[in-house]
Amino acid sequence: MHKVIYDTDPGVDDAMALLFLHRHADIDLIGITTVFGNASIETTTRNALFLKREWNIPAPVAKGASVTIDPSRKEGAWPTFVHGDDGLGNIDVPEVVDVPLDPRPAYKFIIDTVRANPGEVTLVAVGRMTNLALALKEDPDIAGLVKQVVIMGGNFYVPGNVTPVAEANIHGDPEAADIVLTAPWQVVVIGLDVTAITTMSRGYLGEMAARGDKAVQLLDKLSQFYIDFYKHAVEDGMMVHDSCACVYVVAPELFTTISGAMRVVCGGIADGQTIVKQDGRRFPPGDWDDLPSQIACTGIQSQEVIDLIRDTLLNA
Amino acid sequence: MHKVIYDTDPGVDDAMALLFLHRHADIDLIGITTVFGNASIETTTRNALFLKREWNIPAPVAKGASVTIDPSRKEGAWPTFVHGDDGLGNIDVPEVVDVPLDPRPAYKFIIDTVRANPGEVTLVAVGRMTNLALALKEDPDIAGLVKQVVIMGGNFYVPGNVTPVAEANIHGDPEAADIVLTAPWQVVVIGLDVTAITTMSRGYLGEMAARGDKAVQLLDKLSQFYIDFYKHAVEDGMMVHDSCACVYVVAPELFTTISGAMRVVCGGIADGQTIVKQDGRRFPPGDWDDLPSQIACTGIQSQEVIDLIRDTLLNA
Ligand SMILES: [Ca+2]
Ligand SMILES: [Ca+2]
Repeated sequence: MHKVIYDTDPGVDDAMALLFLHRHADIDLIGITTVFGNASIETTTRNALFLKREWNIPAPVAKGASVTIDPSRKEGAWPTFVHGDDGLGNIDVPEVVDVPLDPRPAYKFIIDTVRANPGEVTLVAVGRMTNLALALKEDPDIAGLVKQVVIMGGNFYVPGNVTPVAEANIHGDPEAADIVLTAPWQVVVIGLDVTAITTMSRGYLGEMAARGDKAVQLLDKLSQFYIDFYKHAVEDGMMVHDSCACVYVVAPELFTTISGAMRVVCGGIADGQTIVKQDGRRFPPGDWDDLPSQIACTGIQSQEVIDLIRDTLLNA
Repeated sequence: MHKVIYDTDPGVDDAMALLFLHRHADIDLIGITTVFGNASIETTTRNALFLKREWNIPAPVAKGASVTIDPSRKEGAWPTFVHGDDGLGNIDVPEVVDVPLDPRPAYKFIIDTVRANPGEVTLVAVGRMTNLALALKEDPDIAGLVKQVVIMGGNFYVPGNVTPVAEANIHGDPEAADIVLTAPWQVVVIGLDVTAITTMSRGYLGEMAARGDKAVQLLDKLSQFYIDFYKHAVEDGMMVHDSCACVYVVAPELFTTISGAMRVVCGGIADGQTIVKQDGRRFPPGDWDDLPSQIACTGIQSQEVIDLIRDTLLNA
């Protein structure tokens, strides 16, 4: 049984991944922490509470960061053209969802929960890395107490999605991501190398909705706007970025990986790029020396991942 | 017939490429310009004169840049562990080679020669981009008078060779490379995506030497140290980086390419990284907008390239 804290910015693909975590038999979802990114922290937190209520998820929700760890970074407009004005595909999520929040900020919830379950917690982070970086800054020793960290973010040997070399979650808070990737815990990075080639078609999702319960039908409904957005890159379907990270937790054998020290570029034209120095490759002394070796996914069995998502979501 | 100016820092793989240019029936080698990089400018220029003499190459040699275009950049040690103390595999190149130099600095030779042959000159640059950048700064209009620029440098969707994201020629003078790649001329970039998978074995080269003349035998001799260096990455052979760029001039059909605006990172942990924004990909406004579309090679028919090098070098 994998005890998981899910750090998320719902977000359409975040929603699918949340339902996956909630429904997978080998996952014990013990907390949901929110972060800004796909929308403001007020919106992503409201959305997390909404999905918790609609899907009867027992895990508590703790509200997280609203700005980058370096507050001098400028924030752009929210990507409403991807996730809709409400962050969930313009399905008219109610303005207020009357579900209580955990009283602690997300980073404190993470620290407390990790310390209460030493060696047992997997952090699955699928938004900007701000909450995790704040937790590490407040209590660096949690790095030795976490089982592993699985993130959706970055890209290694493929282009980025917000700049030619940067992916949105990492680009959204590069300083935080650099803290997370260089900390002495095991991070598995599920980036665009694998998520950009793992797509679910509108028809496949529709068939799931036809066979599934109201939860899957809501997921189908809130995903339509996102699928429309992906028309430029996917033939009538969506990349299931965040779900890939969740699948890794229970089925790592569906991924191929490399290992190496990782850094994130902070500033300049490559701002937000994630870089791995693959173990075993020789370079002159440099910025990757003496850092922990992390894991980067470079290959994926996409159809098996998609089918596992379907089977899990239909396993109500 | 391709009129070629060869900008080079010999350098072992530079030497093979020089003999290729000299011997290919469709290439008219009209000038050799030297640049620092694999060794000091004194050494690379001496080596160019040595090879010109040994191989009876009529093209004049003009001496080029000895420092980066931004003189405040710090220079590291020369890569003697790759190309030997003499830059040609420790074959005891004579200290002084009594062959006259062209009186002009390389950038001036390039400008004059391009202006004397408008629309006809292909620049093949296989060292740092300093001479080309100096030529552009002195006379920006040459960009419109050059036929094309083919460079060996950079890496796009594979790791670098001097840092996890940077290749030596570009990393050696990033500001110069950024000037060259953003100028309004057609640049074709032959980088590690294709050169790192294009290797010639010691045995293959030895067989060429057995069949070839003294020129090929000298090439075989000066390449042994370099082949020894490559043990960490190649099974008893060498990457023929610079020759790949020369092959492109006469046989572009052996390469697959993408097109897009290019920039080089100057400073920070990604210093010297070459980045392409592939045409047709959508990104928010950024640092690649409104720049000329260049060509990046991402695929190569390696065996055909190697065989073409052999056949050309044996065509004495
Ligand atoms: Ca997300
Ligand atoms: Ca060279």
